Amino acid sequence: METMNYAAIPTPRGPEEKGDLGFGAVVSTASRKRLLNPDGSFNVRRVGLPWAEAVSLYHSALTLSWPQFFGWVVLIYLGINILFGALFLLCGPGALVGSGAASMGGAFARAFFFSVETFATIGYGNISPAGAMPHFIMTFEALVGVLAQALITGLFFARFARPTAAITFSSRAVIAPFKDGKALMIRMANRRKNELIELKASLSFSYVNDENGVSMRRYRALTLDRAEVTFFPLAWTIVHPITPASPLWALDHDALMAKDAEILLLLSGIDDTFATTVHARTSYKPDQLDWDTRFTNIFNQPDADGLMSLDISRLDETHPVV
Amino acid sequence: METMNYAAIPTPRGPEEKGDLGFGAVVSTASRKRLLNPDGSFNVRRVGLPWAEAVSLYHSALTLSWPQFFGWVVLIYLGINILFGALFLLCGPGALVGSGAASMGGAFARAFFFSVETFATIGYGNISPAGAMPHFIMTFEALVGVLAQALITGLFFARFARPTAAITFSSRAVIAPFKDGKALMIRMANRRKNELIELKASLSFSYVNDENGVSMRRYRALTLDRAEVTFFPLAWTIVHPITPASPLWALDHDALMAKDAEILLLLSGIDDTFATTVHARTSYKPDQLDWDTRFTNIFNQPDADGLMSLDISRLDETHPVV
Amino acid sequence: METMNYAAIPTPRGPEEKGDLGFGAVVSTASRKRLLNPDGSFNVRRVGLPWAEAVSLYHSALTLSWPQFFGWVVLIYLGINILFGALFLLCGPGALVGSGAASMGGAFARAFFFSVETFATIGYGNISPAGAMPHFIMTFEALVGVLAQALITGLFFARFARPTAAITFSSRAVIAPFKDGKALMIRMANRRKNELIELKASLSFSYVNDENGVSMRRYRALTLDRAEVTFFPLAWTIVHPITPASPLWALDHDALMAKDAEILLLLSGIDDTFATTVHARTSYKPDQLDWDTRFTNIFNQPDADGLMSLDISRLDETHPVV
Amino acid sequence: METMNYAAIPTPRGPEEKGDLGFGAVVSTASRKRLLNPDGSFNVRRVGLPWAEAVSLYHSALTLSWPQFFGWVVLIYLGINILFGALFLLCGPGALVGSGAASMGGAFARAFFFSVETFATIGYGNISPAGAMPHFIMTFEALVGVLAQALITGLFFARFARPTAAITFSSRAVIAPFKDGKALMIRMANRRKNELIELKASLSFSYVNDENGVSMRRYRALTLDRAEVTFFPLAWTIVHPITPASPLWALDHDALMAKDAEILLLLSGIDDTFATTVHARTSYKPDQLDWDTRFTNIFNQPDADGLMSLDISRLDETHPVV
Repeated sequence: METMNYAAIPTPRGPEEKGDLGFGAVVSTASRKRLLNPDGSFNVRRVGLPWAEAVSLYHSALTLSWPQFFGWVVLIYLGINILFGALFLLCGPGALVGSGAASMGGAFARAFFFSVETFATIGYGNISPAGAMPHFIMTFEALVGVLAQALITGLFFARFARPTAAITFSSRAVIAPFKDGKALMIRMANRRKNELIELKASLSFSYVNDENGVSMRRYRALTLDRAEVTFFPLAWTIVHPITPASPLWALDHDALMAKDAEILLLLSGIDDTFATTVHARTSYKPDQLDWDTRFTNIFNQPDADGLMSLDISRLDETHPVV
Repeated sequence: METMNYAAIPTPRGPEEKGDLGFGAVVSTASRKRLLNPDGSFNVRRVGLPWAEAVSLYHSALTLSWPQFFGWVVLIYLGINILFGALFLLCGPGALVGSGAASMGGAFARAFFFSVETFATIGYGNISPAGAMPHFIMTFEALVGVLAQALITGLFFARFARPTAAITFSSRAVIAPFKDGKALMIRMANRRKNELIELKASLSFSYVNDENGVSMRRYRALTLDRAEVTFFPLAWTIVHPITPASPLWALDHDALMAKDAEILLLLSGIDDTFATTVHARTSYKPDQLDWDTRFTNIFNQPDADGLMSLDISRLDETHPVV
Repeated sequence: METMNYAAIPTPRGPEEKGDLGFGAVVSTASRKRLLNPDGSFNVRRVGLPWAEAVSLYHSALTLSWPQFFGWVVLIYLGINILFGALFLLCGPGALVGSGAASMGGAFARAFFFSVETFATIGYGNISPAGAMPHFIMTFEALVGVLAQALITGLFFARFARPTAAITFSSRAVIAPFKDGKALMIRMANRRKNELIELKASLSFSYVNDENGVSMRRYRALTLDRAEVTFFPLAWTIVHPITPASPLWALDHDALMAKDAEILLLLSGIDDTFATTVHARTSYKPDQLDWDTRFTNIFNQPDADGLMSLDISRLDETHPVV
Repeated sequence: METMNYAAIPTPRGPEEKGDLGFGAVVSTASRKRLLNPDGSFNVRRVGLPWAEAVSLYHSALTLSWPQFFGWVVLIYLGINILFGALFLLCGPGALVGSGAASMGGAFARAFFFSVETFATIGYGNISPAGAMPHFIMTFEALVGVLAQALITGLFFARFARPTAAITFSSRAVIAPFKDGKALMIRMANRRKNELIELKASLSFSYVNDENGVSMRRYRALTLDRAEVTFFPLAWTIVHPITPASPLWALDHDALMAKDAEILLLLSGIDDTFATTVHARTSYKPDQLDWDTRFTNIFNQPDADGLMSLDISRLDETHPVV
């Protein structure tokens, strides 16, 4: 389809196109899914990659949750030892000497436990290899053990060192009174003890436009009252004033729904612990906007020492404007 | 309280607000604590996080002092071996064979020492497991040992790799003669052998302002005579000339106290050893300012080889201006 | 040759020289090879370095493919154990005690297996050293084992942490209709699950120019219709409109061949997984350009869930413009 | 000395001071040493730090040469095992059982070798501990072994990951004909296989000036004909044209000597292998300048395959201009 290919190449149509973030016009028109999920992931898939590349073991090993990660470690650990246990067993009854198999739950159990003692480089000597072939297998397993230790250490550290911002965005955005008019507001907080500094936010408005009978998805930047803060010790509420210059001016809920609108928020900052730049993003569809609503104050009164605190559990609290 | 929520959203009131660093107007008004501690940490707390997230083991493991870190390592090492020792003991008297328990301080001591030989993958064989269950526990402990080695290696490196600037700021700021007038000066030195390059400083003045009967905390940038240096081989004295354009013009000690003033200093630079960007910050309250005082020269005369040196221990030395 | 040395110093000849990327005028004139290979490597060699520096083991260890890397690990592992096996053998027949050599394939095999048990710190005890010299060799091999484990762990992680962009460029560039004229287009896709953000592209045109009878290689920047995208979730087609202002204006295939032209593409972006900046580059010679051709759309229709997908295997598909 | 303290604060004296790199006016006047050594290190020392901080073990561990690093590793390895060997010996003759001490070179040798088998977690079992105290010492040594493995692995990787640019600068700078006049030229080459990209150079001229009878060191930037290159595949000659606008205009060797001049060169670039920013710097004193001299071409003719090469060993080759 000629037009779709053309659409994949974003064409400049004036300054408003600066809000386009790289999705292009195609995706958004053909798909009725949101562009960005609330957790910041994209609603697209890549296909056509060879199996080996598509799986991307390393990327998975980094992005698994810790319980999943440890689950895989245990499975692979058992798998390796079952495999080598089976190999030792295949060498025949005389391949392993020492404690009798009967006391350990049978010949396979003995071979499995011998494999563990080898893989983990323990080597009590209560079971030991006898003959050239078992020694050869042991030589190979010892190398596998060294590599496995190196691999798991590398993955542990890579998981630690991976810069991630634990920023919680309010699950809904509000349209609240601001100065003499109204503003779109989104609240966020830092869940981690890590300080985030030099935070920058950018907000985009994406909508479907009818152009000569063709539906095209368009993008426009939404200017922020304040787009940067040096410190982010508490919460930050970003504010887009809905002035006549705003693409949101005079649009109500129904108009936003009709345009299949989506508000895209991008955040970048520096994690002070590792001095790495972290990114976070989210988006809001029209049904996540609360009109004539304010975020409720989430600062607690200073305690006896005069120290203020912020109650992150109340990040989503709002109240209607009367 | 409506106004507090509004205050959490910094509203632009002209260029002077560029000095606001993200604290917003609320915190500073309600709390009488300083915003930034001398060591650069913030005087705010986050509450309302689930226990698991609030603890942040990894962040703690990185920011503990080395003695604390090693203390925890020893405790966890003993704890793991006590736990596995107890498990081996629970398998009954025949679970471990080899050297008698009596010679090692009893059955529990023997089980504990066997656990150590397993966990650390030594496996002399002077004690060895007998039966399926002890072998099974040994299999699990061997995995724990592999993971513990990986974890401790990862933490060691993460602690090493964490970019930290060991910048010492003078404990007090001075108001000294400068050209035809006066200037606020703060001195700093690099405690590490690591070279810091491309250093940038920014200075802010924070104060409480009465606006229509409401106390609002305001922020204004203080321009520096020189805000960047390429090298930081020695000490650096940053200088804010108190000209009529300065927010500090015509303010004396009492005026600063009345305004609950705070001078915030931010520094960023590149650590030449790891090419990572490091940040440091501190603040000064009015009682940390010395009026009509100079920093005393801390350069030693060149030695026999003509090499100059800087005496960091005298960073805080000042003398009154006569 | 005086002129060549002069040529090595790029002389500014107006804004068009901004396209020069550091090759200078010499290389390109004397050599008829392309400047940049399709995989982004350079067509030059450095000579005159001492052997030790030229080999650069660490760089090789990082850039080897995984099979090559594991091949070397196996070879070095065998080599170390053959070496230490031989050393133990040299200590005489009584140096090792325990299981008889006959059962393991001879004295050398026994010494080799003993070395493995030592290097990998297994130490079953079925073979053990006897006498001062074998213990001394064992002491040394134990240290080698510790260092080898550290080295392989460090290399594993360094290979993981090395930021690499798996960007596939279309193997050919096309000259396709664009608005009222034509444009040079190159398509690319991200093969990894890692999100790439803040992508920037720059395109240069390099050609040989006759200047007063001397062939000089010149460089000119090619402006892009869009040089940056915030997200790169799918494919990106970069577009250089061939307007009268373009250095490619009015040049056809034969003219480009005669000028020994080369189109150089540079890309940089941020890998969202590690927040590291990654770079990719490629180049196109005139015989890699398809005239009056378009890239075929590679978006699949939305699936049942409304999710779009991109077929990376069809990145190179083009069709002629009728 | 009042004036020295004042001098430590760089005072702005117009745009020429932009060349000051952070040394300030004091250092350079009082010391007759060069500011920057040819290898880029600074000619200043810090004193007054507590012993523990001044030593900076980690920084040393990173910057030692590899032979020195391995030397320390061997010493510490032997030291730890001598220490633990002595502890085991102190437990009395019955603390270790197994192979007799006589065959290993005495009781201390046996205790030392047992310590090695424990520290490296080998544990053949040919020697094993007997009694509670030896087991307790073994427990502690096993922990030391785990930590040592973690430490050495962390240091290995930190040494690998440390971004260093192996840029060789020509040992001398030349003043060569350039266009209609002359230019100061410095040549550099990349010794590593790592590609360096986005290289930026800046050049400063430092000199002592007599100001109202006081010698003050001043700094001025030297503009470069070309201050950036995108690729650095070969050699790069940076060129400062000595026009009437240059601070070097009309200065000859004797004038530079009288002013105790120093030319400071700073370079930054991105190492393509790790995407880390690397820095290099050097300086030239007047006796390192060659007047009316050119760098000799160091490009070899293309080989049979048309591939050019650069002979880095001839980087310093110059020839007089006739």
